[in-house]
Amino acid sequence: APPPAANDPMWASFTAIAGQDGEVDAEELQRCLTQSGFTGSYAPFSLDTCRIMIAMLDRDFTGKMGFSEFKELFTALNGWKQNFMMFDQDRSGTVEPHEMNQALNTMGYRVSPQSLNAIIKRYNKGGRIYFDDYVACCVKLRTLTENFRRRDTMQQGAVTFQYDDFILCTMSI
Amino acid sequence: APPPAANDPMWASFTAIAGQDGEVDAEELQRCLTQSGFTGSYAPFSLDTCRIMIAMLDRDFTGKMGFSEFKELFTALNGWKQNFMMFDQDRSGTVEPHEMNQALNTMGYRVSPQSLNAIIKRYNKGGRIYFDDYVACCVKLRTLTENFRRRDTMQQGAVTFQYDDFILCTMSI
Repeated sequence: APPPAANDPMWASFTAIAGQDGEVDAEELQRCLTQSGFTGSYAPFSLDTCRIMIAMLDRDFTGKMGFSEFKELFTALNGWKQNFMMFDQDRSGTVEPHEMNQALNTMGYRVSPQSLNAIIKRYNKGGRIYFDDYVACCVKLRTLTENFRRRDTMQQGAVTFQYDDFILCTMSI
Repeated sequence: APPPAANDPMWASFTAIAGQDGEVDAEELQRCLTQSGFTGSYAPFSLDTCRIMIAMLDRDFTGKMGFSEFKELFTALNGWKQNFMMFDQDRSGTVEPHEMNQALNTMGYRVSPQSLNAIIKRYNKGGRIYFDDYVACCVKLRTLTENFRRRDTMQQGAVTFQYDDFILCTMSI
């Protein structure tokens, strides 16, 4: 019998890149995103950004991605691309730092002016934010927020971290 | 009167790269580290690694580095380079993932096997850890550990983070 995913239109592209081991690593993902034209007129994703994309969904820490994670990633990437293009109306390939607050709000994040400033300082190049860095920022913010929420079981907006758990949550991305 | 740093042998190299504003940004730092031959036979630092080097010491979030931070950075970099070379005995420019535990221990970090595994997954390329990624890993680990310790005033090995403070501590690097 064919695998349950065989009817899925994305199954073919997944198997084409996953190779022998049936999983996608960062190099394979970078090639796939470049060749499929996902980034369009924007510069291709850096290997670093692809590594944290995998880490975002790699809940078993294998460093690779199966088919369901592959689809989950594409859903997230499409959302971020739409969001980015909404702010990059002149198709310069960049958004302005002052638009980051609105961009993050649109995605449901609420951060203080101080955190926003730290994010902008980290992800701008020459005063502008490129698509690759924008996605890297979104990957990190999503992963950190998920890690936080999963521990904030009483939804109090505060989490007590042991040192090693803090390192585990933050060093993988 | 000359500035108090004028007698310092590093003052000349600092002023040469800091330019008009008297501070060093990520692009200037990358140029400086490449031209000064700091990385030697290793590949030059990526711009991303230089950005987090600055963020590590940029406690006022300006995205730039003054002279005292510049010297503090060089002290840290020299330590990490010595440490890396101790493990890269065949001068391949890489260390083996299984040596990371010892390398981190030498620097005084104690992490669980699970965290170590997450770190190795994040920072290896094709199963080896290059100098640039090694330094990026050290920069992050140092910054996260410092941020944690500064809040762990009772030295209990546990810190309660509000969401926004958690984001501030982790998104800047």
